[in-house]
Amino acid sequence: MRAAVYNAPFDISVESRPDPVIQNPREAIVRVTSTCVCGSDLWYYRGESKRKGGGPIGHEFLGVVEELGSEVTGLKVGDFVIAPFMWSDGTCPHCLHGVTSSCVHGGFWAIGTDGGQGEYVRVPEADGTLVVVPGGVPDAALLPSLLTLSDVMGTGHHAAVSAGVVAGSTVAVVGDGAVGLCGVLAARRLGAGRIIALSRNPQRQAIATAFGATDIVSSRGDDALAEVRDLTDGIGVDATLECVGTAQAFTTAFAIARPGSRVGFVGVPHGVEFPLQAAFSNNVGLGGGLAPVRTYLPALLDDVLNGSINPGLVFDYEFDFENIADAYAAMDSRRAIKAIAHLA
Amino acid sequence: MRAAVYNAPFDISVESRPDPVIQNPREAIVRVTSTCVCGSDLWYYRGESKRKGGGPIGHEFLGVVEELGSEVTGLKVGDFVIAPFMWSDGTCPHCLHGVTSSCVHGGFWAIGTDGGQGEYVRVPEADGTLVVVPGGVPDAALLPSLLTLSDVMGTGHHAAVSAGVVAGSTVAVVGDGAVGLCGVLAARRLGAGRIIALSRNPQRQAIATAFGATDIVSSRGDDALAEVRDLTDGIGVDATLECVGTAQAFTTAFAIARPGSRVGFVGVPHGVEFPLQAAFSNNVGLGGGLAPVRTYLPALLDDVLNGSINPGLVFDYEFDFENIADAYAAMDSRRAIKAIAHLA
Repeated sequence: MRAAVYNAPFDISVESRPDPVIQNPREAIVRVTSTCVCGSDLWYYRGESKRKGGGPIGHEFLGVVEELGSEVTGLKVGDFVIAPFMWSDGTCPHCLHGVTSSCVHGGFWAIGTDGGQGEYVRVPEADGTLVVVPGGVPDAALLPSLLTLSDVMGTGHHAAVSAGVVAGSTVAVVGDGAVGLCGVLAARRLGAGRIIALSRNPQRQAIATAFGATDIVSSRGDDALAEVRDLTDGIGVDATLECVGTAQAFTTAFAIARPGSRVGFVGVPHGVEFPLQAAFSNNVGLGGGLAPVRTYLPALLDDVLNGSINPGLVFDYEFDFENIADAYAAMDSRRAIKAIAHLA
Repeated sequence: MRAAVYNAPFDISVESRPDPVIQNPREAIVRVTSTCVCGSDLWYYRGESKRKGGGPIGHEFLGVVEELGSEVTGLKVGDFVIAPFMWSDGTCPHCLHGVTSSCVHGGFWAIGTDGGQGEYVRVPEADGTLVVVPGGVPDAALLPSLLTLSDVMGTGHHAAVSAGVVAGSTVAVVGDGAVGLCGVLAARRLGAGRIIALSRNPQRQAIATAFGATDIVSSRGDDALAEVRDLTDGIGVDATLECVGTAQAFTTAFAIARPGSRVGFVGVPHGVEFPLQAAFSNNVGLGGGLAPVRTYLPALLDDVLNGSINPGLVFDYEFDFENIADAYAAMDSRRAIKAIAHLA
C-alpha cells in the first residue's frame, strides 16, 4: 500500500509499505477512503516534538471494512466506518467511565499499527473502536464533517464539556485552529448563550461566526484580555476552551476565566508553566486532556447526519494523497486550517 | 484589647492593641468568644511564607455582635455569629456565583482589620459576611463544631465539592490535618461510598474513621500509591481531595486519581510543580482553591445544629488565650491537630 512516512522535520514522503494483515481475532482491516492532517501532526513536523523517522503517521480516517478477525461481532465487511484518533476496547473500566483515551488496551494508530495517512489500516479492538455510519458510503458532501469526528470535532467538544459549558454559559475559545473552531460549534451545540472567539484571521473568524461565535476578539495579549473583560463587565467568562497548548494560550485562558469557572484544555501542552497560584486564588479549575472522542462519536454523528452541525467547514484545503507533503506545508504556514484527501 | 501578634518565625505574642471602632456604616464590631489556630498559620510561623512582623493574626472566630454600622440590616447587637475566614459582601457577581473568596469587596481579617486571634474584630461587609447562629449563645459542646465552619469544615467541604464527590463515589483524602479530616467528613456527608484516608498517625486515623473513612492507608510514597491502587482494583479513585499543598501531596493525588476524575485542592500550594502532562494524558482535572466557606456555611451550620456532623472533633488541644504561642508550637510539632481557645 501507499502510506505517508515521517522522515525528519519538514520531510514527509509517501512510500510503499506492506499491506497490513490481521494479527489477532479482535482486529479489522480498513481500506481508507478519506484522511487528513492534524494540527498536532505539526508538532513533530516542525521538530518541536521528538519523533523517530521512518514510520507511518496520521490518526484520522474514514474507510470501508475489508476484513474482520474471527471475534469481531459488531461490524460487517463493507461497513463504512469512522475511526477515532485512538483505538479502545469499549469494555475496560476507563472506557466504561467514558475515558476511552485511557483504555487499558488502547493505543495510537502510528505506534504499533499503520497510522491513518495511508491506504489501509489494521485496527486493533475493532468492535470497541470503529463507529459504523448507517446507510453505507455516505454522500460526498458529508465526508468532511464525518472525518472531523475522528478528532477535531470530538476534541473541541471535549474542551467544551471539560470547561463546563451548559445552556446559557458565556464561553471564550482560545485558539482558532480546527479544534478551536470546533470548540465554538460544540459550545453552540451545548446551548452557550454567548461565545467569544479569539482570532486574528478573517477567514477563521468567518468560520467561527458560522459556527456560532457571537463576539470576535482580534487583539492579542493584554489588549485581548481587556477586550474580553469589557465584554463580560469585568467578570470573566463562565467557561474557557484552551485549544492551543502553548504558554501564551494558557496565560490568556486563565486570565479571562471568571473565578469559580473552569478552563477546558485539549491541546497537548508545550512549554506551559501552569499558573497554580492564580488557579488557587481565583478558584479557576482545569479539566480536559487527551480527548476520549470515541465516547462522543455516536451523539455527534447523529447531529452531523441530521444536519444540525457541519464541522466539515474546517477543511479548507483538499489535496491529492500523493502530495500530502504540500498539505503539511500549507498547514504549517497557516495557509490552510485543515487539509483533507479522498483516496480512490 | 488583647490580641495575638506575629513578630517573627516561631515568635508569637499576645499584646494590648487599640479596640477596633467602626469605620464605615457596613461594618460591625464582634467580641470574640472562641478562636483557634489554623494549619495555614503555620506557613508563616515556620518562616515558609513571608510575613511582616508586628501585625495581628488569625482568621477563625465565633463571637457576639457588639456594635453595628448604620447600614447593616441583617444583624442585631447580641447576635451570636460565625465569621468565615474572609469577609465578602454577598452581592457582587462573584459572590452571586458562590465564589465569596473572590468578592470584589472582600478581604482577609489580618490584612486591613484585626485578625481573628484577639478579643474584638472590626468586620467589614458585616451583612454579607457574618452568619447568625439561631437561638443565641449555643451550648458549649457545640462551639468546636461551630468554629470549624469558619474555615476547616468549609474548606474540607470545598475540596470534596471541587473533586466532584457524589453519592457512591470512591474518594481518597490526602492529608490528615484538620482540613483533610473535615474532607473525610464532607465526603461522607455527600454520600461517598468508600473513603480512603491517607494517614500515618493513629490518633488522626481514629478521627478519620469516626468521620466516615472506610479504609486507612498508612504507608507513604510508592507503597501508598500501590495500596490505593490495590484497594481500587488498579483503577484509581473517583475523586481525590488534596488537603496539604506540598509537592509530595500533589504527586500522590494525581497518581491515585483515576482517568477522568478530578483532584480538589484547598491547601495553599507551596513549591508544587503541577503535573500538567500527566493531567493531560489521564484527563485528571483540578478544581478548588481558596475555599468560599461563606457560601457553604448555612447548609453546614444546619447539619451541625441537627447533629448530623460533628467536625469539632478535630480540636484536640484547648489553650488559654494568653498562651497562644504554646498552641502554635503544639501544632507545629504535630502534637496537636488543631487548637482552640474560649475567651472570657
